Amino acid sequence: MLKLFFAPHTCALASHIALEDAGASYELARIDFRAEEQKKPEYLAINPKARVPALVTERGILTETPAILAFIAQSHPRVRLAPLDDPFAFARVQAFNSYLCSTVHVAHAHRMRGYRWVDDPAAIEAMKKKVPQTVGECYALIERAMLEGPWVMGDAYTICDPYLFTLAQWMEGDRVDIARFPKVQEHRKRMAERPAVKKAIAAEIA
Amino acid sequence: MLKLFFAPHTCALASHIALEDAGASYELARIDFRAEEQKKPEYLAINPKARVPALVTERGILTETPAILAFIAQSHPRVRLAPLDDPFAFARVQAFNSYLCSTVHVAHAHRMRGYRWVDDPAAIEAMKKKVPQTVGECYALIERAMLEGPWVMGDAYTICDPYLFTLAQWMEGDRVDIARFPKVQEHRKRMAERPAVKKAIAAEIA
Repeated sequence: MLKLFFAPHTCALASHIALEDAGASYELARIDFRAEEQKKPEYLAINPKARVPALVTERGILTETPAILAFIAQSHPRVRLAPLDDPFAFARVQAFNSYLCSTVHVAHAHRMRGYRWVDDPAAIEAMKKKVPQTVGECYALIERAMLEGPWVMGDAYTICDPYLFTLAQWMEGDRVDIARFPKVQEHRKRMAERPAVKKAIAAEIA
Repeated sequence: MLKLFFAPHTCALASHIALEDAGASYELARIDFRAEEQKKPEYLAINPKARVPALVTERGILTETPAILAFIAQSHPRVRLAPLDDPFAFARVQAFNSYLCSTVHVAHAHRMRGYRWVDDPAAIEAMKKKVPQTVGECYALIERAMLEGPWVMGDAYTICDPYLFTLAQWMEGDRVDIARFPKVQEHRKRMAERPAVKKAIAAEIA
C-alpha cells in the first residue's frame, strides 16, 4: 500500500487529493513541523531533503510534487488524471506543474522560509515585503495565460488542478487578493466542492 | 521542425543536449539577454515568462526544462532517454529533475537574480553571500544520495544527465568547489566528452 508523508497546510495536499482522485489505496503519515520531525533521523531516512511530501511505494520512495503527481496519474491510467498517451499534452500538464513548483511555490516560500536563502534578519524581512508582488505576478500570469477553465487544462480535470488549488490556499497569507483573479477564484471554489478535496482536507486537519 | 529558443550559459543547454541525444530535427533561436530580448513583445508572445528555454513544436509551445526534457524523451521513445514504460522509474527521473529545477537552480539564482525576490540592494548582497553554502548543500545531497553513477540513474543515460551537467557548469561561479564532490566531478567530465554535448556547446557559443 502507498504511504504519503504529509504535514498540514503544505504542498503535500496536492498529492493527497490526487491519491483520492485516483481511488488509490494509501495511508497517511503526519509529520509535525512544529516539533521539527522533518529534521529527525527517522524522517531523513525517508526523505533526506527534510521536506514533504514523500510517497512510500513498494518499489521505493518518491519525492517532489510534480513527480509524485505524474506517478499517481501514470500508475492509475484508467482514471485519466493526465493525457498519458499524448506527449505534447502531457508536457503542457508538466510545464504547468513545474511552474507551480519552481516559481509560484518558491515566490511564496520567501515569506516564511527566507532563511533558506539568506542569513541576515533584515534581508529576511526585506524578502517578506516583496512576496505579495511576486506571488501576485504569478497568479496574474496564471489567470491571463495558463488557466483555461473550467479546469487548468480546459475541459479535462488533471493533476494540475489539485496542485493549483493547494498553492492557492496560501494567497491570503501572502496578501494576494484572489478577487483580482476571477478564474483562479472560481477554480478554487470549484475544487473545494469536490468530495475528494473535502475528504483530504478533513483528514489533514483532523 | 522543432525550434529551441535559448540563451548561452542558461539552463536551456539541457534541452539542447537532449535534442541532440534524441537525434531530433530542430533549429536554434538565440535570445540575447544583454539586449533584454527576452522581455520584448516578440519573445513574450513565445514565452510570457520571459525565460528560456522555450520549445516551439507543431502543436504549440512548451516551457519549463523538466517538461521539455520529458517531452523529448517521450516523443523519441526509441532512443530511450527515460524509462518510459515504468511509472516508478520515470517518477525517479522526474523527481531528480524537479529537484534541479526548484531547489538547485533556485539556490543558484539568488546570486545573479536576487532582484526577483527582494528590492533592497543590501538584501540582494546578503543573498549572494549564502549561495556557496546553499548550492554546496544541494551538491552534497546529490553526491551522497542521488547520483548513482556512472549516470544519474545508474547504468542508463537519461534526461537527468544533461540537466545535471548544465547546472554543474555554474558551480565555479557559485564558488562551490566541485572537487568536494567526486561523483559530480566525474559525471561532468564524462558528459563533456560526449559528442552531443560538444556539439551543443559549440553551437551556443558560436
